[in-house]
Amino acid sequence: MPNQPDIGDPEPQQKRVGFAVVGLGELSAEELIPALRTSQHAYLAAVVTGEPDKGQAFARAAGLSDQDAYTYEQFDDLAKRDDVQAVYIVLPNNLHREYTERAARMGKHVLCEKPLATSTEDAEAMVAACKAAGVKLMAAYRIQYTPHHWTAKRAIAAGQLGKIKLLDSIHAQVEDDASVWRLSLKQAGGGPLVDVGIYCLNTLRFLTGLEPEWVYAAMHQPQNDERFKEVEESMSVMLGFPSGLIANFLTSYGAFKTDTVRVLGEAGSVLLDPAFVYIGLELELSDERAKTRPQFAAYDQFTLEVDHFAVCIRENREPYTPGEEGVQDHRLMDAIYQSARSGVRVEVEKFSGQDVFRNTRNEPELPSSAS
Amino acid sequence: MPNQPDIGDPEPQQKRVGFAVVGLGELSAEELIPALRTSQHAYLAAVVTGEPDKGQAFARAAGLSDQDAYTYEQFDDLAKRDDVQAVYIVLPNNLHREYTERAARMGKHVLCEKPLATSTEDAEAMVAACKAAGVKLMAAYRIQYTPHHWTAKRAIAAGQLGKIKLLDSIHAQVEDDASVWRLSLKQAGGGPLVDVGIYCLNTLRFLTGLEPEWVYAAMHQPQNDERFKEVEESMSVMLGFPSGLIANFLTSYGAFKTDTVRVLGEAGSVLLDPAFVYIGLELELSDERAKTRPQFAAYDQFTLEVDHFAVCIRENREPYTPGEEGVQDHRLMDAIYQSARSGVRVEVEKFSGQDVFRNTRNEPELPSSAS
Amino acid sequence: MPNQPDIGDPEPQQKRVGFAVVGLGELSAEELIPALRTSQHAYLAAVVTGEPDKGQAFARAAGLSDQDAYTYEQFDDLAKRDDVQAVYIVLPNNLHREYTERAARMGKHVLCEKPLATSTEDAEAMVAACKAAGVKLMAAYRIQYTPHHWTAKRAIAAGQLGKIKLLDSIHAQVEDDASVWRLSLKQAGGGPLVDVGIYCLNTLRFLTGLEPEWVYAAMHQPQNDERFKEVEESMSVMLGFPSGLIANFLTSYGAFKTDTVRVLGEAGSVLLDPAFVYIGLELELSDERAKTRPQFAAYDQFTLEVDHFAVCIRENREPYTPGEEGVQDHRLMDAIYQSARSGVRVEVEKFSGQDVFRNTRNEPELPSSAS
Amino acid sequence: MPNQPDIGDPEPQQKRVGFAVVGLGELSAEELIPALRTSQHAYLAAVVTGEPDKGQAFARAAGLSDQDAYTYEQFDDLAKRDDVQAVYIVLPNNLHREYTERAARMGKHVLCEKPLATSTEDAEAMVAACKAAGVKLMAAYRIQYTPHHWTAKRAIAAGQLGKIKLLDSIHAQVEDDASVWRLSLKQAGGGPLVDVGIYCLNTLRFLTGLEPEWVYAAMHQPQNDERFKEVEESMSVMLGFPSGLIANFLTSYGAFKTDTVRVLGEAGSVLLDPAFVYIGLELELSDERAKTRPQFAAYDQFTLEVDHFAVCIRENREPYTPGEEGVQDHRLMDAIYQSARSGVRVEVEKFSGQDVFRNTRNEPELPSSAS
Repeated sequence: MPNQPDIGDPEPQQKRVGFAVVGLGELSAEELIPALRTSQHAYLAAVVTGEPDKGQAFARAAGLSDQDAYTYEQFDDLAKRDDVQAVYIVLPNNLHREYTERAARMGKHVLCEKPLATSTEDAEAMVAACKAAGVKLMAAYRIQYTPHHWTAKRAIAAGQLGKIKLLDSIHAQVEDDASVWRLSLKQAGGGPLVDVGIYCLNTLRFLTGLEPEWVYAAMHQPQNDERFKEVEESMSVMLGFPSGLIANFLTSYGAFKTDTVRVLGEAGSVLLDPAFVYIGLELELSDERAKTRPQFAAYDQFTLEVDHFAVCIRENREPYTPGEEGVQDHRLMDAIYQSARSGVRVEVEKFSGQDVFRNTRNEPELPSSAS
Repeated sequence: MPNQPDIGDPEPQQKRVGFAVVGLGELSAEELIPALRTSQHAYLAAVVTGEPDKGQAFARAAGLSDQDAYTYEQFDDLAKRDDVQAVYIVLPNNLHREYTERAARMGKHVLCEKPLATSTEDAEAMVAACKAAGVKLMAAYRIQYTPHHWTAKRAIAAGQLGKIKLLDSIHAQVEDDASVWRLSLKQAGGGPLVDVGIYCLNTLRFLTGLEPEWVYAAMHQPQNDERFKEVEESMSVMLGFPSGLIANFLTSYGAFKTDTVRVLGEAGSVLLDPAFVYIGLELELSDERAKTRPQFAAYDQFTLEVDHFAVCIRENREPYTPGEEGVQDHRLMDAIYQSARSGVRVEVEKFSGQDVFRNTRNEPELPSSAS
Repeated sequence: MPNQPDIGDPEPQQKRVGFAVVGLGELSAEELIPALRTSQHAYLAAVVTGEPDKGQAFARAAGLSDQDAYTYEQFDDLAKRDDVQAVYIVLPNNLHREYTERAARMGKHVLCEKPLATSTEDAEAMVAACKAAGVKLMAAYRIQYTPHHWTAKRAIAAGQLGKIKLLDSIHAQVEDDASVWRLSLKQAGGGPLVDVGIYCLNTLRFLTGLEPEWVYAAMHQPQNDERFKEVEESMSVMLGFPSGLIANFLTSYGAFKTDTVRVLGEAGSVLLDPAFVYIGLELELSDERAKTRPQFAAYDQFTLEVDHFAVCIRENREPYTPGEEGVQDHRLMDAIYQSARSGVRVEVEKFSGQDVFRNTRNEPELPSSAS
Repeated sequence: MPNQPDIGDPEPQQKRVGFAVVGLGELSAEELIPALRTSQHAYLAAVVTGEPDKGQAFARAAGLSDQDAYTYEQFDDLAKRDDVQAVYIVLPNNLHREYTERAARMGKHVLCEKPLATSTEDAEAMVAACKAAGVKLMAAYRIQYTPHHWTAKRAIAAGQLGKIKLLDSIHAQVEDDASVWRLSLKQAGGGPLVDVGIYCLNTLRFLTGLEPEWVYAAMHQPQNDERFKEVEESMSVMLGFPSGLIANFLTSYGAFKTDTVRVLGEAGSVLLDPAFVYIGLELELSDERAKTRPQFAAYDQFTLEVDHFAVCIRENREPYTPGEEGVQDHRLMDAIYQSARSGVRVEVEKFSGQDVFRNTRNEPELPSSAS
């Protein structure tokens, strides 16, 4: 994939949207900043981090100057930077709300990592703050911007599988380090459910375009494991969708790396396996006549996501996955935890129609489907 | 695979165990009778069916005489046949109890298709009848007799996957014909759960050697579909095992043919996909270092199952999957239906220890593990 | 698959074509006789073998009488059997000619295993003998009768891969037993080339419909290996087809079981892997948009082959793979051995057009392509 | 993978080896410069290109200054740059010799893309020039530096496959653009053989550690295709190795993207498929007991290659793939073209022993084998 402005045909920098990346952890360093480098419509204009040295090193490596590196204390100085039109928030979940609100006050558009916050209330406040400030808020659900997942969604919508009957998904991995913020209930807002299980939840909603009507869940939080003092280790979730469609998903921070989604219709099935990795997604469509794996030209998931938001900003359109899409996942995760704690099935607010939280008039542009 | 007595090295017929196959449906015609033909320790001695012509055609094709074909009315005449030591019951589920009891009264050992009956009560009665008569009763769980499933079980028991955390399984297929006895609640005792979902349930129990402590289930029975007037179309089941281990499984008569089992441990995983087909099982063991698909010499699942029972009879040992193993599935399926109807989690009797319903002293002899 | 006359809907026996299977080795026992059992248009009417006991055991197991078992000496007695319309010759290669000629003299049609003979001369004599006697001769190339191979051939012919550029194939297996007739030059007529390499050769010709114009080959015959005193262990072959199309294939009796065929066009490719097994063939079609594995209803390769010949006999049509098709493989194998011995490229007779040795007006009926 | 100096733990820049990348085509832009960014032992110190603007854009994007961008005319100015210890030559093949000689004269070590040159003579001259100047010359055979290919090589060397019998490889792709230098005989020195077929040749030599003793080849150069006025479109090659081991490979600029290597031993096989891609290599080891796909932590092939050379420079050791390794491929490619033109088998110089052109005392350090 092109890593250089003069390979490919991006727009000149002055027409592209400048982003400040807020938080320089592994995801920023290894995925987001490289993604901005290959973007057609966006570019890295500034970085924000707690460690000035680190910020300057990143800035220089990206061809920026030391002045483009900000500390968290200096975050509000971005207000003076007209070339920074958007921030990409990649902080611990409990800081998402604060930085979104500060960005909104500066008139900066916000692309925020999932989950949107650590509570439905915070997520709703973020939506409200952006609305009040007249800036856009996009939840960074990268799987809603890939050709693999869209090909699956379209096959389902087109009836290729017949009526959909059952859904199944797993997203698990081993979290070894007891000290990471992801294992802090305060910072993360939950355990594997809010970090990796949310992919199952969000993808099942995306693929079907439907919203669950009830949830049932069970979780396991082992005794004497210092990693899981505050959050669950594993969770099993059942979701009841309209028309009797039922989904199961499993998530864990204590199980071997697994990510898979299966959709069973009466006449065919979709298998995404792996379903959520950065590189190497595989999609298989099955029916009685064939098993088919569509092939796509190489793409970067984060580039597609960032480019979508950049185009939305420039053309003043709402992103396909606005803050409301993230709020709905929070509502459902609240219900899931409530069910897991009580052992009782929990009904959630019903929404009829398709893709009710997505801006379906603004579907992402995807790379051509052939390699 | 050898189809002839003089290929391979079976025992002479007089030392092998003679079976009467009771019920000549597709399974008998296409799997069981051919399996008996290639068996090392068993042979087909008689057939029982409602249609005399059909019975005689089968008998002749198998190298037997017309006198070896019995009608259901003549079933008790098998008492006179010393060469028939066992019956293999392949009838609609609601007839399993009656024919098992009649066979027991004749002193014939009973190999009975799954599910054992249409109720826990009937299944328990079958166990009691065989016990009283001093004959053996084996539940025909073929997946408990294959090298693929045993290799998975042993890898799990040996700790290759580390501590087991999550289990997932699906068994679905489309049942098109509204007139089959499998869609009659009276004849089948339930819908896809008792016919195909039972594979998920039984395999998860087999692979872990553990018994669930609670179940939660939801089901879907569509209106206006003449196939599902009496039984469910689809079902989703969550099982709570000891130590916080959780399993999900999905089953359906309305979804595209799918059969899969996944076991996630902290250090590795097992994938059986397809998991339940007669031919073409695939097993993959994954850990950080490799994905490994063990290869096995060709085998016939039904031959292994029948041979196990034949050896048990000849050596007067209890089969690995006695009637009690089938009774336990009935207890669990009762709880599953109860939960699905009530929407409430149902606790079931707790059993500690490993493989409590299996005769672990009498593990099946498997073919050599190399092809 | 149906194993019984009353499952499925075969024709009544009197309308089907009666076959005598000549030679009761593993292939007959495990594949051909079972295939005749499930045939729609053919049935087993007699067996011929050197061991009377064995013959009677097979006859009885197949529901025939002792009178249906013949020794080789009694072969010509089949002349009196009006119900035996065809013989299936499954003898060591050097006996194919003799038994074909004897069968032709009796007016019996001949289905003969590959290779047709141990020399081009013998193969031509067989064609001539059958022609003179007015009986049909079919070379038993089972891969020319499967839905998998036909789907590949049709995709190529339809231009789905664009212009074909390169072909590659391997058929290897380990032959451990130094005493088998396959390792006797006199009985087999060659080594792995004539037994398993012929699959590569024949399949490449079949898939493209073209005939090679030159061959180049190298072979390896190890010293001090008692298995390979008379025939080669391994062979590598290059084939030049019209229009610059080039093919490679490898064959061996000393290498790990491998069977694969790849066809590369400018716009796509075909992969058959495994390509030649009895059960479990896999076909993958690739182009820029997708990798597709067509699925087929279960079928038995030998049943399809036998049924084709039976229909040809009954309807007095020439088989799709007549003796001439087998003669051409002999011509090419002669050239291959000549090249391997001389180290020099060998030109062969050129044939223009498509499928010049096949009866393309009589393409085999294949089972419906969906499972 | 880490893209930033402060992620991971590379050495400080002053201890790492500075490279000038000579030629800024797609490979440099998309693979080599990013690889240097993530290198542990090397860094990008300068770029050389014909277009000053392009050079400056690359320099800036890499955090360098405009002064670090050189034109080809300024190449010799690198002599003054003590921080540039090595050059990585990524020019059209016919320029490899000139730039290697100029670099050697400046005392710069040379990492040169494959093929080393456009003739054996040029390649030998490059080796001589570097030797005379006391600088190191490494042929950039990336597949000799990956864990996938090394795991295959070690399995073969350890006898896991038994004695090796047959080898097969394909490397094909479609070259659409008739104007690229790769289709110019003068600039490229040949067609697909020297560009992509060389991977087959080099990998088969690497995996076995053996050198061919003879070659036979055929090629196709279509009339009326403007792309193939000077070089072949497709080529088929047979290689005779010691002990009767035979290899086939196919290469093309006119066939669907395919890259695969298969090694057949008497007891097992190796399959690399895809075998030569930058991302997504797959290795499968098969024997009677299992098919095993080793898993590796994510790595960048070019980073491993560059790091190897950097360590060799710093520790004054010879690279694993010195110029001589590249010369040998040229000798063999000469023989291959000679055979293809003459239609006659060509004997080449025999070399006994293992890995005779590789510095086996300096095997590359590979990343830990587990993911």
